[in-house]
Amino acid sequence: MNHVECHGLHLDPKTRDDTRRRLLSIKGHVEGVLRMLDDETVYCVDALKQIKAVNGALDKVGALVLRSHLRDHVVTAQERGDVDEIVDELMEVLKYR
Amino acid sequence: MNHVECHGLHLDPKTRDDTRRRLLSIKGHVEGVLRMLDDETVYCVDALKQIKAVNGALDKVGALVLRSHLRDHVVTAQERGDVDEIVDELMEVLKYR
Amino acid sequence: MNHVECHGLHLDPKTRDDTRRRLLSIKGHVEGVLRMLDDETVYCVDALKQIKAVNGALDKVGALVLRSHLRDHVVTAQERGDVDEIVDELMEVLKYR
Amino acid sequence: MNHVECHGLHLDPKTRDDTRRRLLSIKGHVEGVLRMLDDETVYCVDALKQIKAVNGALDKVGALVLRSHLRDHVVTAQERGDVDEIVDELMEVLKYR
Repeated sequence: MNHVECHGLHLDPKTRDDTRRRLLSIKGHVEGVLRMLDDETVYCVDALKQIKAVNGALDKVGALVLRSHLRDHVVTAQERGDVDEIVDELMEVLKYR
Repeated sequence: MNHVECHGLHLDPKTRDDTRRRLLSIKGHVEGVLRMLDDETVYCVDALKQIKAVNGALDKVGALVLRSHLRDHVVTAQERGDVDEIVDELMEVLKYR
Repeated sequence: MNHVECHGLHLDPKTRDDTRRRLLSIKGHVEGVLRMLDDETVYCVDALKQIKAVNGALDKVGALVLRSHLRDHVVTAQERGDVDEIVDELMEVLKYR
Repeated sequence: MNHVECHGLHLDPKTRDDTRRRLLSIKGHVEGVLRMLDDETVYCVDALKQIKAVNGALDKVGALVLRSHLRDHVVTAQERGDVDEIVDELMEVLKYR
């Protein structure tokens, strides 16, 4: 059993709802880019702009979840006694990209 | 009429197919994250990792489209006579993120 | 008086030394790029690669300081009672770039 | 002899001067961060902000050199006949970071 299961470090309900809503919108955006690519006269840079826009939207969802994690779980790690695990996994996820 | 319409700077068919295939897979990935968020015990860092993975997959599609654009349209800009437009829009799309 | 002055949230000595050592090396690297640019036959892409390499070295120093901050100050914010300040400033500094 | 030596793909003098000037300023900025770290009460987040600011300044120099390279060498690659080399090395340097 790892520290997550022990301590019930769950994404808080409000952030979870917000994240879901934004991901649904991102899914719609990806579908829009797919439709755009059905057009054989699509211009590379227009496709590129849409892909970057989806990236930007995902960054915003990521920031939302990160803030929630910092506020709910990272600032309490000392009290809970799982500092090393919390810091290591956070550094890992932050370096990605 | 802008330089795209004049010169028919289209995404080449093979790259367009490849981009579509990858975006379909990315859409599936986003749906997977949405299902993951239906679980009220989901851990923030697990959600964060998935969001970052989708970003990484989008970066790869972006690189694909960018390479195709460089090879098919940027290296020929001098011959075509639209250097300023091609360079400006490329710098714009590269700085995004 | 802000929360830093109140609580003495200093960079720990070992990390401070390590950061200094790495920044000295980064300064040397920048000087190397400057010398490279004295050569009027320098190739753009070679200059670009060196600039990116300095960026990469700075990212590593940043990660070092961030880990130290997480371990020494963020995980104890709940106990100290400055959660909002700690989270806000961390989100701010993480979003930069 | 590679394509650079063959074709004399040099950084144009104006961009080279501008790049040098900015790198000198960046070197001064790094020295400023070093002095900041002489203070044993320095706050992690303040150090982090300065490191990020240097990264941002380097990104601007990189954009300058990149634009110069696109305008002077990439858009003429078809005419010069080194499309594959130009595209490959550009993709390589763009993916870095």
